[in-house]
Amino acid sequence: MSSSPQRRLHLNAFLMAIGHHEAAWRLPESDPNANLDIKHYISLAQTAERGKFDSVFLADSPVLFSNPERRPSGKLEPTIILTAVSAATEKIGLIATASTSYNEPYNLARRFASLDFVSGGRAGWNIVTTAGADAAQNFGLDDTPAHRSRYERAAEFVDVSTKLWDSWEDDAIVADKDVAIHADSAKVHVIEHEGRFFKVRGPLNVPRSPQGYPLLVQAGSSEDGKDFAARYSEAIFTAQPTLDEGKAFYADVKDRVAAVGRDPEQVLILPGIVPVIADTEEEALELEAELERLISPEYARKQLAARFNLEPEQLPLDEELPDDLPSEDEIEGAKSRYTLIVDLARREKLTVRQLIGRLGGGRGHRTFAGTPVQVADTIEHWFRNGAADGFNIMPAVLPSGLEKFVDSVVPILQERGLFRTDYTETTLRGHYGLPRPANQFAVEKDSTLVSAQ
Amino acid sequence: MSSSPQRRLHLNAFLMAIGHHEAAWRLPESDPNANLDIKHYISLAQTAERGKFDSVFLADSPVLFSNPERRPSGKLEPTIILTAVSAATEKIGLIATASTSYNEPYNLARRFASLDFVSGGRAGWNIVTTAGADAAQNFGLDDTPAHRSRYERAAEFVDVSTKLWDSWEDDAIVADKDVAIHADSAKVHVIEHEGRFFKVRGPLNVPRSPQGYPLLVQAGSSEDGKDFAARYSEAIFTAQPTLDEGKAFYADVKDRVAAVGRDPEQVLILPGIVPVIADTEEEALELEAELERLISPEYARKQLAARFNLEPEQLPLDEELPDDLPSEDEIEGAKSRYTLIVDLARREKLTVRQLIGRLGGGRGHRTFAGTPVQVADTIEHWFRNGAADGFNIMPAVLPSGLEKFVDSVVPILQERGLFRTDYTETTLRGHYGLPRPANQFAVEKDSTLVSAQ
Ligand SMILES: Cc1cc2nc3c(=O)[nH]c(=O)nc-3n(C[C@H](O)[C@H](O)[C@H](O)COP(=O)(O)O)c2cc1C
Ligand SMILES: Cc1cc2nc3c(=O)[nH]c(=O)nc-3n(C[C@H](O)[C@H](O)[C@H](O)COP(=O)(O)O)c2cc1C
Repeated sequence: MSSSPQRRLHLNAFLMAIGHHEAAWRLPESDPNANLDIKHYISLAQTAERGKFDSVFLADSPVLFSNPERRPSGKLEPTIILTAVSAATEKIGLIATASTSYNEPYNLARRFASLDFVSGGRAGWNIVTTAGADAAQNFGLDDTPAHRSRYERAAEFVDVSTKLWDSWEDDAIVADKDVAIHADSAKVHVIEHEGRFFKVRGPLNVPRSPQGYPLLVQAGSSEDGKDFAARYSEAIFTAQPTLDEGKAFYADVKDRVAAVGRDPEQVLILPGIVPVIADTEEEALELEAELERLISPEYARKQLAARFNLEPEQLPLDEELPDDLPSEDEIEGAKSRYTLIVDLARREKLTVRQLIGRLGGGRGHRTFAGTPVQVADTIEHWFRNGAADGFNIMPAVLPSGLEKFVDSVVPILQERGLFRTDYTETTLRGHYGLPRPANQFAVEKDSTLVSAQ
Repeated sequence: MSSSPQRRLHLNAFLMAIGHHEAAWRLPESDPNANLDIKHYISLAQTAERGKFDSVFLADSPVLFSNPERRPSGKLEPTIILTAVSAATEKIGLIATASTSYNEPYNLARRFASLDFVSGGRAGWNIVTTAGADAAQNFGLDDTPAHRSRYERAAEFVDVSTKLWDSWEDDAIVADKDVAIHADSAKVHVIEHEGRFFKVRGPLNVPRSPQGYPLLVQAGSSEDGKDFAARYSEAIFTAQPTLDEGKAFYADVKDRVAAVGRDPEQVLILPGIVPVIADTEEEALELEAELERLISPEYARKQLAARFNLEPEQLPLDEELPDDLPSEDEIEGAKSRYTLIVDLARREKLTVRQLIGRLGGGRGHRTFAGTPVQVADTIEHWFRNGAADGFNIMPAVLPSGLEKFVDSVVPILQERGLFRTDYTETTLRGHYGLPRPANQFAVEKDSTLVSAQ
């Protein structure tokens, strides 16, 4: 409502079960089965809402990741979790991940429209293509479809979904009891989509939802991934370990957005940060070191080796990475994350053991141990220097890391005028300052009037 | 806990948006958009829980049914609705419909396991094969797969699902922080399923849920449908318009259950009843007549004609059904419902208009207008005469019809000792008196011990 609005940053809380650090569950304070406890997620979301966060977010993949010995690996389905969370919160946005490779558009579009209704306009979809042969093998395939082909399917999947979400015009429902007409059937459209991957007749069996459709979020950062994001997404999660890389990514993606004719201000870039916060720097570093000590290097080495198409023995723990690693082109999984990890190890000359320590926290995201002021300074610095429109906050340990952020960092950001002190909107799109999308099937009423005169 | 337990009946509340009568939304009392309002479903479930019902149930199909002009046609996805309901209730079971023809087992098994966790063991799955070309056309097909083939896929779908639900043994999670072992990987199994319709590696990414797996419910009543129910289901919904037909169905299904080696007492048969209740018989009949008057016959005739593979003009409103209707064999949709409707019309010599009036209420289920005592008498009569283990209560108008049932019929059933006065169990299986299923992958511990001695 202010007449000279200061640019404000956005905050998303990335809720990863017991914390983003893989050893978080081993801390004395942690409930090691909280990943299956809906009360845990509800309480985390309530904490984030107390901190006026724009949204909470749940990652996902339709597969049992890694070795169940290593850490809590059971994951409830995100739209189910967020529906339960919606009942216990009022304002905060709810972003669920779902795969375009292993779902049908009709089912998924409907599920997100339903979540948008149930939450009163707070649903968001993190669109992922799902890397990995293990996921593919749960869906009749022997191996993951090629990276390029996954993104082609994702593009058509989103096209079909927006058509389905638009298949009811906003004013289709008249609910006139006297004349016995519930909806105006001229405003409910079959979509008759026929493409390379999908053939879908429509209409959706859910009318247009409060936000029109869920906020579209994406996190690809390969070339194909960035092009997809530029074309479709409204918010972008990304892992950027240094400010320079963050600035380059930010500029690159905003250029791509402009190049496809969209407004770069309406695509928000949210790098991840894994803050380990304590009242003194010393305590923060101590907590970080304790978490590193709790990692079991054998599990982590196995996973790292799989990412590199190597055997674990080819990665001696106290040596640097071998010189002859495959190039990004040879990786069909998460290409950009692969390159990021190799670059990080080479740049900082890390041994495999050290690299594992770094990845155990943020898996390539910027980890940062420090005081509340130091964390706020970093956030402000990135925000003011063309690297971020906001941040994806990935606490190493949950719930304590999120509570600490909300109680100690948020007030500093608020004092500096960088972050809202209360919600002014009721929908997820509203929090991010994004418009409700127009309906592609709605007749242009004004122009009809004009041409009829 | 009693030593001579009286046989008790079970009650399920079939929540159909604004009521089972297609014209319910036109009554002055009705909110015509309640079908999209989560508070409506929450309040209905709370009413059913106040009445100590075993469960609430939501039907579903992944398609926009019928003409959106005719009645409220938008439907939120059932597992989303029931997750929100679970947060606002304590004990009542939550049964969602989902299609085996248009889902992937990995995704659906996970969704139901998640609902079972979130609700503390209250999830049930109404397994349907989804008739109709219009649904097929939302999933890349031109027409519905053949009836037989849909049931074959359904059988394999349930086999894959139970394997996935069993892929974690109940004691797989050890969560030992000291030795850094979260789950015992020897108790987490790949399933390596390879069949005619599905190839699924597993394990599921959700551990075994409170009930082991959701209560399996089914409602087929063709020959294939009854065989499927006998083999897989634990509770069976069915439309039986007369006591004799109800008894024949009951005996037939229990025989089939015994024939496949299962215990007939552990498969509960729940015919549907559409009670229109008022304090006097006259008032009840008046309400029924008012609802019939509110039906628009043209929409209904169109739907009836489609069921018979005819044009609407071939069904004059004030004549009986034509003699030369197709036989059940020629129907690829809902075979048994087709036959039921034809038999009803012929038996009672109904005109098309009269038939439409009858179907508008219960679509072939037993409709019954009467006083609370009359409704309770009917229920008791069916229950004591080998036609039912309980009832699927399908109020013509919601919420008022459910409130009336809970406040006036339930107390009578309780006084007669036929129905619980409070919950004694916490899970859906518990309410229905059914055991938690054994895990097909669990090593027989006792026999191992014996052979080791
Ligand atoms: C913060 C963040 C969250 C992500 N969450 C998921 C997820 O939940 N599921 C998934 O399959 N991929 C997830 N990804 C991976 C991305 O979708 C993408 O595959 C990855 O960044 C590699 O980019 P590329 O696919 O363009 O190569 C995430 C990435 C980031 C940065
Ligand atoms: C009470 C009841 C509820 C039903 N709910 C659904 C439903 O939600 N979705 C669906 O596709 N079919 C539903 N059906 C239809 C049955 O699943 C089944 O297809 C039908 O009874 C015909 O039997 P058949 O398939 O063996 O021929 C229901 C049937 C009954 C009796």
